[in-house]
Amino acid sequence: MRLHVPTPLRWGDLDAYGHVNNARMLSLLEEARIQAFWVSDDTPEHAVGASTAVIDASAGTSTLTLIARQEVEYLAPIPYGRLPLDIELWIGRMGGASLDVCYEVYSPAGVEPRTLYTRAATTIVLVDAATNTPRRMTDRERAAWEPYVEAPAEFRRR
Amino acid sequence: MRLHVPTPLRWGDLDAYGHVNNARMLSLLEEARIQAFWVSDDTPEHAVGASTAVIDASAGTSTLTLIARQEVEYLAPIPYGRLPLDIELWIGRMGGASLDVCYEVYSPAGVEPRTLYTRAATTIVLVDAATNTPRRMTDRERAAWEPYVEAPAEFRRR
Amino acid sequence: MRLHVPTPLRWGDLDAYGHVNNARMLSLLEEARIQAFWVSDDTPEHAVGASTAVIDASAGTSTLTLIARQEVEYLAPIPYGRLPLDIELWIGRMGGASLDVCYEVYSPAGVEPRTLYTRAATTIVLVDAATNTPRRMTDRERAAWEPYVEAPAEFRRR
Amino acid sequence: MRLHVPTPLRWGDLDAYGHVNNARMLSLLEEARIQAFWVSDDTPEHAVGASTAVIDASAGTSTLTLIARQEVEYLAPIPYGRLPLDIELWIGRMGGASLDVCYEVYSPAGVEPRTLYTRAATTIVLVDAATNTPRRMTDRERAAWEPYVEAPAEFRRR
Repeated sequence: MRLHVPTPLRWGDLDAYGHVNNARMLSLLEEARIQAFWVSDDTPEHAVGASTAVIDASAGTSTLTLIARQEVEYLAPIPYGRLPLDIELWIGRMGGASLDVCYEVYSPAGVEPRTLYTRAATTIVLVDAATNTPRRMTDRERAAWEPYVEAPAEFRRR
Repeated sequence: MRLHVPTPLRWGDLDAYGHVNNARMLSLLEEARIQAFWVSDDTPEHAVGASTAVIDASAGTSTLTLIARQEVEYLAPIPYGRLPLDIELWIGRMGGASLDVCYEVYSPAGVEPRTLYTRAATTIVLVDAATNTPRRMTDRERAAWEPYVEAPAEFRRR
Repeated sequence: MRLHVPTPLRWGDLDAYGHVNNARMLSLLEEARIQAFWVSDDTPEHAVGASTAVIDASAGTSTLTLIARQEVEYLAPIPYGRLPLDIELWIGRMGGASLDVCYEVYSPAGVEPRTLYTRAATTIVLVDAATNTPRRMTDRERAAWEPYVEAPAEFRRR
Repeated sequence: MRLHVPTPLRWGDLDAYGHVNNARMLSLLEEARIQAFWVSDDTPEHAVGASTAVIDASAGTSTLTLIARQEVEYLAPIPYGRLPLDIELWIGRMGGASLDVCYEVYSPAGVEPRTLYTRAATTIVLVDAATNTPRRMTDRERAAWEPYVEAPAEFRRR
């Protein structure tokens, strides 16, 4: 199963080529990931991530989420638009203290033809903020994320 | 009359102090301004800016909007949250080829107590892309924006 | 007296108009300010700011520098170039717990004709990190900065 | 052979964790790449890239450099410092119309112990701006880059 995270662009995401900048894409993935996984006091009840957002990553919290690796394929340039991109997000691997989040970034929901702009994967390590060492995934986290485990993204250019 | 533009934060807007970075605030104002004033093919019918978004600023268009001046007062640090900031936006001055857009940036709609985080003003010059010189505001622009003219933002620290 | 802070651009500072983005300009001013005022373990001996960089703002430090206000006039669009912009920086007002830093942003040193791109001012408040309240400027800070006090930037468009 | 591109950080590259943000790392790689490969009118004679910067990518130019793929391993968190990071850059593969640029991002030159922060690779496609299709690498480009071809970066986490 995949989460669909509507992720708004900003005009400032464009670079001098007039398309979303390749580095900025990682900020968009970061934001989608946060919507999907991080607990937030102000999460609306029916939000994307209502069932999966179980990492308490607020200030002074016990968990840091460190990025160990990213892989991104840019398949088509992304123009600015007001409607949010439709980022499909799932878990390609769930390890002891880390997980691989996979993404397919599509044109906004409802816009035809649907275009796949980007395919990506991020390896996240859960780190105990007190000891600064990796910590094991909790049962609660594992249960919340299990339904979203699928085969990892397949990259064509490796 | 003022427009209320819901403007989402990103976690990446925070700096090492854990609050929205002062420079990034200008990107948020930029985005609110674009929602309010720029024509876009994909503007939903009931969007903020449905009546005011009359500058055609798409690629290859005839108008550039240049920023001549900005003034910003930062009144309280802004934490990350999932709910969009509530940016009130109005026109403090409408000139021949330029206008002053004023803003008050508030905590998300519905969150109590309501907090005024930032007060700001931007001077925009309408520029003809072909000649690269200022061009006069059209009657259509003037009519669309007239209802949103109010007294300019009052800055306390000048 | 003014400090001259060579401040490198990045290609990513450009926006879709092909010029340095107006919000990004504040990041450039931020960087110039840090070079000028913040102590850093790795400051080279003959660096800009060798005599003025006396705020210890490293992690876990006692001082936060909060931005209370910014005013910016954009006088000419800035293209990308490899040579660093020449930012002139001085103090327009030195108060009890705050100061106004003024800037004139010029084309790179040695490039003719010299162009004034931007004029700006930032009000900084020194804040005690432990109490989160403003703290008085120390004698050491005052002595280090006194030589750089000049008349404040004069804005033309107020 | 590898190029050493000194690449300055900005304080604004830090995120709320107090380290260089993972997305911002791609902006640093972008900047290093531009120093290394793009022609620029204002390139100083003895600059890094004096011999390799042969893509004319100035405004109105005939070549766009599109990013098709990126892979990044983040090996250690990067703190802010004034001294530029030492980015080693080489070519891991030179194809007909594309090349793989590889990077190792190290702590600033001269700082001990030397730390490898990040390992990365970017696939760049040379695109003819007029036709918007890939174009073949020129003999001049091939000759300029040949000395910098080495074995591609080896990623440990694939």
